[in-house]
Amino acid sequence: MDISSLYNHVAPWMDGSGPMNDIVISSRIRLARNISGFLFFPRADAQQQRDVLNYVHDRLMTTDVGKSMMYLDMENVPVLQRSILVERHLISRRLAEGNGACGVSISQDETLAVMINEEDHLRLQAIAGGLQLEETYSQINRIENVLEEQMEYAFSPRYGYLTACPTNVGTGIRVSVMLHLPALKMTGQIEKVFRAARDMRLAVRGFHGEGTEPIGDFFQLSNQTTLGKSESQIIEELTSLAVIPIVEYERRARQKLIDDRQVALDDKIFRALGTLGNCRMINSEEAMFLLSYVRLGVHLERIKDLSLNTVNEIFLMTQPAHLQNWYKKDMDPTQRDQMRAEFIVKKLSSPSN
Amino acid sequence: MDISSLYNHVAPWMDGSGPMNDIVISSRIRLARNISGFLFFPRADAQQQRDVLNYVHDRLMTTDVGKSMMYLDMENVPVLQRSILVERHLISRRLAEGNGACGVSISQDETLAVMINEEDHLRLQAIAGGLQLEETYSQINRIENVLEEQMEYAFSPRYGYLTACPTNVGTGIRVSVMLHLPALKMTGQIEKVFRAARDMRLAVRGFHGEGTEPIGDFFQLSNQTTLGKSESQIIEELTSLAVIPIVEYERRARQKLIDDRQVALDDKIFRALGTLGNCRMINSEEAMFLLSYVRLGVHLERIKDLSLNTVNEIFLMTQPAHLQNWYKKDMDPTQRDQMRAEFIVKKLSSPSN
Repeated sequence: MDISSLYNHVAPWMDGSGPMNDIVISSRIRLARNISGFLFFPRADAQQQRDVLNYVHDRLMTTDVGKSMMYLDMENVPVLQRSILVERHLISRRLAEGNGACGVSISQDETLAVMINEEDHLRLQAIAGGLQLEETYSQINRIENVLEEQMEYAFSPRYGYLTACPTNVGTGIRVSVMLHLPALKMTGQIEKVFRAARDMRLAVRGFHGEGTEPIGDFFQLSNQTTLGKSESQIIEELTSLAVIPIVEYERRARQKLIDDRQVALDDKIFRALGTLGNCRMINSEEAMFLLSYVRLGVHLERIKDLSLNTVNEIFLMTQPAHLQNWYKKDMDPTQRDQMRAEFIVKKLSSPSN
Repeated sequence: MDISSLYNHVAPWMDGSGPMNDIVISSRIRLARNISGFLFFPRADAQQQRDVLNYVHDRLMTTDVGKSMMYLDMENVPVLQRSILVERHLISRRLAEGNGACGVSISQDETLAVMINEEDHLRLQAIAGGLQLEETYSQINRIENVLEEQMEYAFSPRYGYLTACPTNVGTGIRVSVMLHLPALKMTGQIEKVFRAARDMRLAVRGFHGEGTEPIGDFFQLSNQTTLGKSESQIIEELTSLAVIPIVEYERRARQKLIDDRQVALDDKIFRALGTLGNCRMINSEEAMFLLSYVRLGVHLERIKDLSLNTVNEIFLMTQPAHLQNWYKKDMDPTQRDQMRAEFIVKKLSSPSN
């Protein structure tokens, strides 16, 4: 399997067909695990890190699921390709920027990734479009079990799974959903929603996860607590107490906009479409901001001749690394802004939308 | 002649065919005159004002030029129609808002207007597209002479023509040109130009003349001095020392934008076009601001499938009174913003552009 085969199209899970995809972009679960008998990654020296990588890699490769995945030794992956993997949510920024022995295995359909020597020896990730946390959990659970037959996880009967950072101790689980909440933002209710989420000890982050600011009305909601609750409890609480109510609020806010402020709503949607379809330079922040309105317009069927797939494709392909890969050249930010505009204008004017 | 025949199309002089029309929108000259033997308008009582109106009207109507014009007794003109006349630059705001006996005669082609009892007994105005001050002066001179055969102007051998406001004494002439200077604005040179103009005792005003702010890079330049120089001298100085150099500066700035910042320039032009072509509500200020870039784009042949005539039509027809007349209803500002957007989107998407 050739990694470059991934780059020029959207992943199947991004086709916008998942449940509640009008509001829930994606569901993601990652598990942090460490191998018993090895020093935690941040404390290990180069040779010990290499030993862990080899140990995990060799055992992963004895399994069917491991064999079906594409393995990348990160030391051999050029910077641009690392950034592409980040933009596709396949690896973390930390792994992309990391030195030392580390690697990742990625499933053909890009829904599963096993990072080795990120912060923990193992970071398992499963992702799906729309709200599919239970299915996602089954998937990640399956690979976790497969791997458990090959190696012993560091585990304390008292604390649960042991991790490099204490915030992950216990279940080692991080459950997150990416939400698109333009109507709550437009109607000024978003802060109220976030306050409620924070009161539930949930984290609210931007499109690119930890340490990023919200852009274009996309928000990542995730659990902060990993200790004292079971995985199912964490998933169930996040779903029923946070995601579903927020989806309901957003839907109500959208309906209210249609009922009370139809023209103002259309104005925002079509201006965004008009600007995207005519700009000659645009940075990624503005592009996301405008695409957010266009996505809303497509879901509300205000924009009729544009597919969600095209919107998702523009989202993905106009990120800096994808863009440079698409045009096959290194570009400074000014050039990227121009080529991003060119890509978007072409996509929006093409009849194949 | 029916006044309503004017409203739904642009005046012939607005067709954008005048000299230097890439930068000079229009040339306008007005003369202030008063009739000897009558009190100045602001000092006269209602009956005396009525006497002046009748006196001037009757004499105007004995002349061929007067007969060929359309006469409007302002007391019979509804508010909306008064505003339309202002938007077409046919009467001043002062006349539109004035009480008492006043009127205006307008030529068929809308290049000539005779206001009676504005601030002075007579305000003669001639207007033309592009830079045509000499031709405009000939035209206004002709009607001034025709009227002089019918009545005696208040004149002092020492001061020249006497006027209600001392700032107009002497020649009573106000010579003005409307300039479109987007490139000087974009390149930050506009203030320097205005400082030079003010040093020459010229006034710089907005699109709607006295008391209005510049919007959308349109600036009215006019003489302030009416005393101590002949009419020809005032026209010649304004033309050769101000208008022509400014036109040169603007052309050079446009060329420099094309040479050095083509993409940034196109970005502004096409975003403006995209926003105008897709908005669902837009106020007149933003519309002018965006139309300014579109006009530039048409002149620089960056926008190829849009005629200057359509741009001018949108400029004129989206002003509040024209818009209400077009849609045949009174509208509050919110409704106007919506109908303005509707008008513009339709105009820009119509193949007859």
